[in-house]
Amino acid sequence: MSKKHKKAGLSPGTIVYTGNKQLEKIYIHFLQYDGDSFVEDKFDNHKKIAFNNLIDGKVNWYDIRGIHDVELIEIIGKAFQIHPLILEDVADVNQRPKFDEYELGNFITIRALSFDKSKLSVTTEQISLYFNKSVVLTFQENESDLFEEVRIRIKNGKGRIRNRKTDYLSYAIIDVLIDNYYIVLEEIEEVIEELEENLLSTQDLRNKNRIHILKKELLFVRKSILPLREAINRFSKNETIYVEDRTLLFIRDAYDHTIQIMDMLDSYRDILTGLQDLLITEVSYKMNQVMQVLTLVATIFIPLTFLAGVYGMNFDNMPELHWEYSYFVLLGIMFVLLVGLIFYFKKRKWL
Amino acid sequence: MSKKHKKAGLSPGTIVYTGNKQLEKIYIHFLQYDGDSFVEDKFDNHKKIAFNNLIDGKVNWYDIRGIHDVELIEIIGKAFQIHPLILEDVADVNQRPKFDEYELGNFITIRALSFDKSKLSVTTEQISLYFNKSVVLTFQENESDLFEEVRIRIKNGKGRIRNRKTDYLSYAIIDVLIDNYYIVLEEIEEVIEELEENLLSTQDLRNKNRIHILKKELLFVRKSILPLREAINRFSKNETIYVEDRTLLFIRDAYDHTIQIMDMLDSYRDILTGLQDLLITEVSYKMNQVMQVLTLVATIFIPLTFLAGVYGMNFDNMPELHWEYSYFVLLGIMFVLLVGLIFYFKKRKWL
Amino acid sequence: MSKKHKKAGLSPGTIVYTGNKQLEKIYIHFLQYDGDSFVEDKFDNHKKIAFNNLIDGKVNWYDIRGIHDVELIEIIGKAFQIHPLILEDVADVNQRPKFDEYELGNFITIRALSFDKSKLSVTTEQISLYFNKSVVLTFQENESDLFEEVRIRIKNGKGRIRNRKTDYLSYAIIDVLIDNYYIVLEEIEEVIEELEENLLSTQDLRNKNRIHILKKELLFVRKSILPLREAINRFSKNETIYVEDRTLLFIRDAYDHTIQIMDMLDSYRDILTGLQDLLITEVSYKMNQVMQVLTLVATIFIPLTFLAGVYGMNFDNMPELHWEYSYFVLLGIMFVLLVGLIFYFKKRKWL
Amino acid sequence: MSKKHKKAGLSPGTIVYTGNKQLEKIYIHFLQYDGDSFVEDKFDNHKKIAFNNLIDGKVNWYDIRGIHDVELIEIIGKAFQIHPLILEDVADVNQRPKFDEYELGNFITIRALSFDKSKLSVTTEQISLYFNKSVVLTFQENESDLFEEVRIRIKNGKGRIRNRKTDYLSYAIIDVLIDNYYIVLEEIEEVIEELEENLLSTQDLRNKNRIHILKKELLFVRKSILPLREAINRFSKNETIYVEDRTLLFIRDAYDHTIQIMDMLDSYRDILTGLQDLLITEVSYKMNQVMQVLTLVATIFIPLTFLAGVYGMNFDNMPELHWEYSYFVLLGIMFVLLVGLIFYFKKRKWL
Amino acid sequence: MSKKHKKAGLSPGTIVYTGNKQLEKIYIHFLQYDGDSFVEDKFDNHKKIAFNNLIDGKVNWYDIRGIHDVELIEIIGKAFQIHPLILEDVADVNQRPKFDEYELGNFITIRALSFDKSKLSVTTEQISLYFNKSVVLTFQENESDLFEEVRIRIKNGKGRIRNRKTDYLSYAIIDVLIDNYYIVLEEIEEVIEELEENLLSTQDLRNKNRIHILKKELLFVRKSILPLREAINRFSKNETIYVEDRTLLFIRDAYDHTIQIMDMLDSYRDILTGLQDLLITEVSYKMNQVMQVLTLVATIFIPLTFLAGVYGMNFDNMPELHWEYSYFVLLGIMFVLLVGLIFYFKKRKWL
Repeated sequence: MSKKHKKAGLSPGTIVYTGNKQLEKIYIHFLQYDGDSFVEDKFDNHKKIAFNNLIDGKVNWYDIRGIHDVELIEIIGKAFQIHPLILEDVADVNQRPKFDEYELGNFITIRALSFDKSKLSVTTEQISLYFNKSVVLTFQENESDLFEEVRIRIKNGKGRIRNRKTDYLSYAIIDVLIDNYYIVLEEIEEVIEELEENLLSTQDLRNKNRIHILKKELLFVRKSILPLREAINRFSKNETIYVEDRTLLFIRDAYDHTIQIMDMLDSYRDILTGLQDLLITEVSYKMNQVMQVLTLVATIFIPLTFLAGVYGMNFDNMPELHWEYSYFVLLGIMFVLLVGLIFYFKKRKWL
Repeated sequence: MSKKHKKAGLSPGTIVYTGNKQLEKIYIHFLQYDGDSFVEDKFDNHKKIAFNNLIDGKVNWYDIRGIHDVELIEIIGKAFQIHPLILEDVADVNQRPKFDEYELGNFITIRALSFDKSKLSVTTEQISLYFNKSVVLTFQENESDLFEEVRIRIKNGKGRIRNRKTDYLSYAIIDVLIDNYYIVLEEIEEVIEELEENLLSTQDLRNKNRIHILKKELLFVRKSILPLREAINRFSKNETIYVEDRTLLFIRDAYDHTIQIMDMLDSYRDILTGLQDLLITEVSYKMNQVMQVLTLVATIFIPLTFLAGVYGMNFDNMPELHWEYSYFVLLGIMFVLLVGLIFYFKKRKWL
Repeated sequence: MSKKHKKAGLSPGTIVYTGNKQLEKIYIHFLQYDGDSFVEDKFDNHKKIAFNNLIDGKVNWYDIRGIHDVELIEIIGKAFQIHPLILEDVADVNQRPKFDEYELGNFITIRALSFDKSKLSVTTEQISLYFNKSVVLTFQENESDLFEEVRIRIKNGKGRIRNRKTDYLSYAIIDVLIDNYYIVLEEIEEVIEELEENLLSTQDLRNKNRIHILKKELLFVRKSILPLREAINRFSKNETIYVEDRTLLFIRDAYDHTIQIMDMLDSYRDILTGLQDLLITEVSYKMNQVMQVLTLVATIFIPLTFLAGVYGMNFDNMPELHWEYSYFVLLGIMFVLLVGLIFYFKKRKWL
Repeated sequence: MSKKHKKAGLSPGTIVYTGNKQLEKIYIHFLQYDGDSFVEDKFDNHKKIAFNNLIDGKVNWYDIRGIHDVELIEIIGKAFQIHPLILEDVADVNQRPKFDEYELGNFITIRALSFDKSKLSVTTEQISLYFNKSVVLTFQENESDLFEEVRIRIKNGKGRIRNRKTDYLSYAIIDVLIDNYYIVLEEIEEVIEELEENLLSTQDLRNKNRIHILKKELLFVRKSILPLREAINRFSKNETIYVEDRTLLFIRDAYDHTIQIMDMLDSYRDILTGLQDLLITEVSYKMNQVMQVLTLVATIFIPLTFLAGVYGMNFDNMPELHWEYSYFVLLGIMFVLLVGLIFYFKKRKWL
Repeated sequence: MSKKHKKAGLSPGTIVYTGNKQLEKIYIHFLQYDGDSFVEDKFDNHKKIAFNNLIDGKVNWYDIRGIHDVELIEIIGKAFQIHPLILEDVADVNQRPKFDEYELGNFITIRALSFDKSKLSVTTEQISLYFNKSVVLTFQENESDLFEEVRIRIKNGKGRIRNRKTDYLSYAIIDVLIDNYYIVLEEIEEVIEELEENLLSTQDLRNKNRIHILKKELLFVRKSILPLREAINRFSKNETIYVEDRTLLFIRDAYDHTIQIMDMLDSYRDILTGLQDLLITEVSYKMNQVMQVLTLVATIFIPLTFLAGVYGMNFDNMPELHWEYSYFVLLGIMFVLLVGLIFYFKKRKWL
């Protein structure tokens, strides 16, 4: 889980990347827009990043990929006067999602989820977002580009995004991430439904490990989303100058979504717990049936075998052996016993 | 559960119907009334809807069926200046029930329940309600008409409904939906009581799946009603100009009902959990009894069979075989053993 | 449980009796008193009830039995200007206990409990109480008269009740009902202690159903008392003109009692859960012992029987059969095996 | 548990002793002190108690034993103008611990614990404490004297107690009782550790009843301490004139101790639950092993015995019987089967 | 756990060391610094400690090891006018972590953790910290020196620590302790992952005790960290003159870390509970398979053995024995039975 935490003993505010390096080189996607204008730029090197062409009144979005590059974070931190604790959190990718107000801007971290259906494993990636009046910064170490849709909407001038400020862009980015949660959760739901179907119809008991693993993964997802709910809630009550009132309505909507996602997670967990209980009942029930069969067969044939054994003894003086019809009488007795026991078990509902 | 959520990446506020189309064509039922007058009208086409004959001081209720028709929602949205987030929620039928105050009106979503006793499955349908000073709008994709009773009461001028405003009509609609919950819950209760009766009297273990399925359905119902309780609570504390104080008393009464419904749901769940525990105990108990029978029979006859086996051996030199009464002595020993073991088991309460 | 809820679709405030009619005819017991005077009267017919001889400054208590008579409730409602929602709640006897402040008086509903020890079943009866400055109204459909004690105290002028107002009388009535809870709970406790005694000493496993039923009944009691606690709490914080400060101290004392009753209920439930766990452990433990006996006997005698079987075979050429002491050697081997296995099982603590 | 509750129907405020009479005669220990003076006196009869020599500015402590004597409580109540509800609570020894502020003084009830290690049973005794500016009253029906230590400290003038007021004395008394909880809890902890040790090392399954009983006793202790925590918390926030600010610091310290005691209780309960789970796992695990042995032996020898049985048959025409080496061939086959099955079970890890 | 609590009956504020003496002699490490100057000193004897060279405006840190020496605590208490309750808490090493504001300074206690992987046991050590405007005092009975890193950072003037006051130093010390929690938790996580790996892949059931022990240790860790979270939270809201606003940001960051640590702890516990459930399922599942094998073998061969037994009987008149092909016919019947039963079990999925 939270492997490779920053080494104890380092001074607070020291920037240490605590994740796995996943990108070969850094990559920065820059967008500058307002209702009328739109500029796009891309950088893959620290030195080339242009920080001085910011225009107040326009939205400037730097989407930064490659936070393994600690130097890059420091450069950006200086350029936008970001508090050292924020920079530390950007690089420490095992953070709980949170929303913090700072004097010069707001900071939020979110975890992007993805689910591998075959391995039943969920992976998460930390995405940090910082914004003030004119700048939005997003930080991640992730190749797959969830933000492309936002960028296209901006480019096309679709929706209200071009006429709003950094707060709305921040909301739009968070909204994309939350929408993605639904997709992941529905994939998980499908797996759960398959498991349930399988258990209810074929009583297949071999899913015990899968239920355990899914429960653990849900636990893991929950740990990422529960604090996000609080974070978005705090965001929706934000009263800094960086957020407009009309945007708050949208953030509250995003907050409703996080609540719904938590609801879904909790009901998945409850269903899995139910499946586990069902599986245990099923195991006991099956054993019950197996034991009934065994007991039936044993209870009927063990006494009969004993009887046969008695008349298989070789004593010289066993008068019954020499009576003419004793064999048939014994067979008769055995038959009566057999039928009697079967009736008895029928009455006790074992057959 | 929440299948078909809006596609990630769409601009917030985009209206997408996320449910199944259940009505062939749209259908709008219009009522306009005050203490003295009553007008009724029906439309089944966008173009024919008359929005301009609204009369202030009268209650205007549009009951809109057919929210798969996104264009319709947009037209209505424009006609009554409804916030885009409301319109999005109207069409996104997998919402958590909620109550939201907007500047120009109040918005509430509720889920209507229905229970199929044979399949043990609960289905829910989202119903959205928007009201301001003079207009009430209800949105659904549902043929069965729970609101007919309200309409009849209005037509007949029965009760206080004709002398009250949109807030009271909204309350009356919600009240009908909540009353319907009681009916659904009582159907579920009947099934639970049958299950319990069945388990307590006949120890029938085959209900394990049914208990599981019912628990899951209750989980699902709970997810619909828990947020409704909060929603109604917020409604009952509403201080907008759209709600009169004397109506709040009634809404608080509806709130009490949602609490009672939650109580009922929780006790159903607890009873089902109790049944599940009982079933597991029953399975173990039954196996215990089965094993006692097996052990009894085996413990008594296996040693006896061994003895018979010994004297069935064909060694040349087995002196006992040739003694005159050895056979009867052995039979006597076997009988004593048998009786002794039976006494022993009687004492240990296995018989 | 809450069978026969009011039919959905009726106008809110419609008075419908939702319980079982238990009294043949209505019966109203009227008391009027202050420190000096005491008047008592009884009515068993609507028309005869005298409402016009109320005297301000005196306490007027109408104890009304027979709420199946909806007309009676309406008459009383009109006579004392009671809000329609109160009248609806009086007749709807499946309400959650609650305390509501209305403009003209306070309203509280409580459930009276009784426990049938042989059936292990708890039955409850709704009792409603309404009071303003000079009138106390109690409504019920119950023949057994818990209030007689209060009436006697008033008649005898014992305690402080004659010098206090309607608020204190209301408190005294509630106090009697709460005191009655203790009696019911102690009856339940006795049953639980018998069950526990029985399980701990004789390991009797047949109590599984009784534990389940008791747990369910406790659930049911809990549902009646939990909201009462809230109701009494709200009552104890009442700031209307109908309640004197010096009475609030007493109500707070009643509140303490409801908390204690909840404590008792919760610990009963925990003890029952503990008993259930113990029972399951006991079942497993017993099966363990049974299986050990079976395994012991089978493991010892099955191999021995095999050996005897081998020498019971009829092959022509079985040299061992013809050796002089082979039978005794085999018996010796069998004996050694037997002793060895017994020692082995002793060591594994199975004997 | 709460046996012998006050009879329902008595007027509130009636003093009824609800415990068992444990002292033959009443006994009152009186201390009067300030920084300079110290007076001690003892009474064992109502009539002799001197109430009129109270000196303002000094601390007057009456430690009253023998609350079965209702008359005594009434006399004291009158002498110090104590509210009737307090007097009722003093005699009703099944109260939840609580702290109440009254106009003329503060009232607190605590339960003193003691643990009987051999019976695994906890007994509690209610101790009530009332204090105002100059008087401290403690009430109990208990011979063992936990307060002796406080008295000695006062006599010796050790610590700050002689220079403080009634509030500090009250704190000191409560502190002694809370310190005593630690002793009781450590005795319980010892028993739990023995149980755990026993279960982990020797897998002794006979402790199931003891775990159940201990859990029940902890439940019982919890019921006494949880409300005490609230009571002490309220005491620590007391703003009456009877409590000095500098004493509040000490009461907050006592509050911290009650929290820690609750922590300990909760972890004991969790450990016991863990032990119970472990015990159940252990039972299943043991049965598993037993069944493996049985299955092993049966699976190996039952087919072999069948083979031997076949060749023990007495048909005239069984050619194999007459072949010269058939017996040895069969023995060989049996041996191969035996070895093969053993190998098979080795592979499945059953051996 | 909390063994050796202070003896009941001692006066509150009495200093008693309740832990085990772990250091042979006391040892005090003194640091005095501001942005420009740095002085370091060490003492190992009460009498030599210099208290009078404190310089206002500089940070003076006494790191005191050897709190078994009660006299030392008293000397320090007098030198810095520390409240007696603080001194008592310093020596009573079984305290819950807490943060208390006193008039002359702030006091916080934390527990340092260490984990022994081979014994699966966590040990904790209480560390107390007191600070006012110019002095920081840390108290412990611990040889291993977690604070060395802080001292080195101060000496080297790295980070912002040299330019800040006592509040930042206090924060830095707490931060080191919290960072250390991550290390301990990751060690625990490794053990849990090994257990899980082991259970999922090899179904080894012998880990039951280890799971139980780990759960208990986590419980123990939780008891140390949960109150710390509250303590740090209160610290982060501190408004005394001893803490600067810019330091609060850092303390809030530490608070976030304690939340994350609680999250981790809770998910470890949930995983362990999941493992326990899996283990129980596994045990039942395995038993199921074992029983199927037994039942299979017994059900097939017991009836066959009976048949063989019948024809092993020695009756004179058993006509079948003398028919020419009866032996082969019987073998055929047996074979058909065998094949039939195998087919039957195949169909029931037991093979």
